[in-house]
Amino acid sequence: MQTTEKTQPKLLNLKKRLSEINDLEAAASLLYWDQATYMPPGGAAARGRQLATLQKIAHSKFTDPAMGELLEGLRPYEETLPYFSDEASLIRCTRKNYHRAVQVPAEFMGEFSEHRTETYSVWVKARATNDFAAVRPYLEKTLDLSREMAYFFPGYEHIADPLIDFADYGMKVSILRTLFSQLREELVPIVEAITAQSPTDNNCLHQRYPEEEQLDLTLKVMKQMGYDFERGRQDQTHHPFMINFSTGDVRITTRVDEDDLSQALFSSIHEMGHGLYEQGIRRDLEGTPLACGTSSGVHESQSRLWENIVGRSRGFWKFFYPQ
Amino acid sequence: MQTTEKTQPKLLNLKKRLSEINDLEAAASLLYWDQATYMPPGGAAARGRQLATLQKIAHSKFTDPAMGELLEGLRPYEETLPYFSDEASLIRCTRKNYHRAVQVPAEFMGEFSEHRTETYSVWVKARATNDFAAVRPYLEKTLDLSREMAYFFPGYEHIADPLIDFADYGMKVSILRTLFSQLREELVPIVEAITAQSPTDNNCLHQRYPEEEQLDLTLKVMKQMGYDFERGRQDQTHHPFMINFSTGDVRITTRVDEDDLSQALFSSIHEMGHGLYEQGIRRDLEGTPLACGTSSGVHESQSRLWENIVGRSRGFWKFFYPQ
Repeated sequence: MQTTEKTQPKLLNLKKRLSEINDLEAAASLLYWDQATYMPPGGAAARGRQLATLQKIAHSKFTDPAMGELLEGLRPYEETLPYFSDEASLIRCTRKNYHRAVQVPAEFMGEFSEHRTETYSVWVKARATNDFAAVRPYLEKTLDLSREMAYFFPGYEHIADPLIDFADYGMKVSILRTLFSQLREELVPIVEAITAQSPTDNNCLHQRYPEEEQLDLTLKVMKQMGYDFERGRQDQTHHPFMINFSTGDVRITTRVDEDDLSQALFSSIHEMGHGLYEQGIRRDLEGTPLACGTSSGVHESQSRLWENIVGRSRGFWKFFYPQ
Repeated sequence: MQTTEKTQPKLLNLKKRLSEINDLEAAASLLYWDQATYMPPGGAAARGRQLATLQKIAHSKFTDPAMGELLEGLRPYEETLPYFSDEASLIRCTRKNYHRAVQVPAEFMGEFSEHRTETYSVWVKARATNDFAAVRPYLEKTLDLSREMAYFFPGYEHIADPLIDFADYGMKVSILRTLFSQLREELVPIVEAITAQSPTDNNCLHQRYPEEEQLDLTLKVMKQMGYDFERGRQDQTHHPFMINFSTGDVRITTRVDEDDLSQALFSSIHEMGHGLYEQGIRRDLEGTPLACGTSSGVHESQSRLWENIVGRSRGFWKFFYPQ
């Protein structure tokens, strides 16, 4: 970023506040990562409380009225800058997030966070015994809390709109319905044409592949694809995800089924796609809201590009299968 | 703990504040644990900043003047309670920590924390090449910062006294010098008597022991000794330590030398000794300053009890060696 901090003490103040909030969020992310990878079962109750506390404090700091005043105070400066400059974008994105965040009380953020952590623990246990009934009341509460979250943003066309907007700024149900119906027209014939064929023999994926060897393979593939292990790592979990704690620490997780090579391999490639996107972010944007993917949609385009267009391509298998 | 919260809203307020601070400290501990076990090298710079931020916020919250007023306001209630009751002890310990914490500015706490994180990264790299010169300037700065820390507590007899007091409340150089000289009188003849013997053949410890098998052995020994893996786990690091994030999550770390069985085995038993002590803490004290070891001295007595009195005993080896 340009260093205009000396001439713009307000911008310096903004960046300092954002960096502190970012540190709290990064710590919360690590608590989540640990919960999903290595945490012993006994840690679950306290972990929920710890995550809720961090998120409450981060939220309180971000919604501090001083933040709003700062953003207003920066408006004249912002208007002198090109719209897509780093600094104008930083101020604009922060303002968008701020106006969204002040709608939601910190207590509610804490409550929702604690509920998510509890749900995760229940799900991990229920998954082992395929016990949907155990998870059901938690999912129902998630739905209630999601509705409650939407109520903080009155004026929506559809109750899901505010929630979709969190993930994909500007997206809403009415746009998605049109988009999906257009896609359906084109996709259904393609799917029909494929399923009309006799099924491909994918028996080679369903041999017995020991865990260690599968993990070695995923690491080899990821290295070849350009994922930087100096700034990342892979661990095992129940439901794979990508998570980052800084531009220098972007991790992925995977899961192994010893009777199905496709689980670990495609999970790893998919999450690595998310990871490559995050690892590609300019390092000097760190600690600001610009240092993340622009939307869930774009993020998913990156993961699926690597998983499907590359990982399921003939070229990929011609290269790796003989090795 | 007795639930007198309804009659003592100030006590409830105190516990709520302490629990929030405890959550921040637990998050900082997890950031440290991760740095020492799984963090990729690229995460180091941001990790230092994140740890410093958490410690600064925890410190600011703890030294909030409202905390001091609360502790003063609780004095009349405290005086009605038995000295060693949970609640009187909670108020007393918190007050002791508070009066200590307000001496030190939050900025200094952040600076010291960041320096420690940086030093750790430098040490890990220097250790691989046995490069003391690389670490030396960092150790010198640690010494400077430690002196600066002591200056915040004027009136000491010896400059190390305030620092020793952090680890062992009430202990100071003059007491330790007397203690050590008494110990020396008794210990030196014992050491001389031992070293006068021809050295024992400990060749059996210095065979080639593969990492996996050593780790399996340590886990087996720890289970037998009563360490609860539902509320703990063991990971590898460069310099073993015990760390806890709640009474339900008390972890240890170890290190393996494939040519020396004693490294991992005695490290694990030692750290497990610390861990057993923490796992034995009453669960309902969680989130308060009472939920930790009473001093470094007592803590070390537990780790060394298990490492030396048990782990190096004939009985231990008679039991485990044949297995």
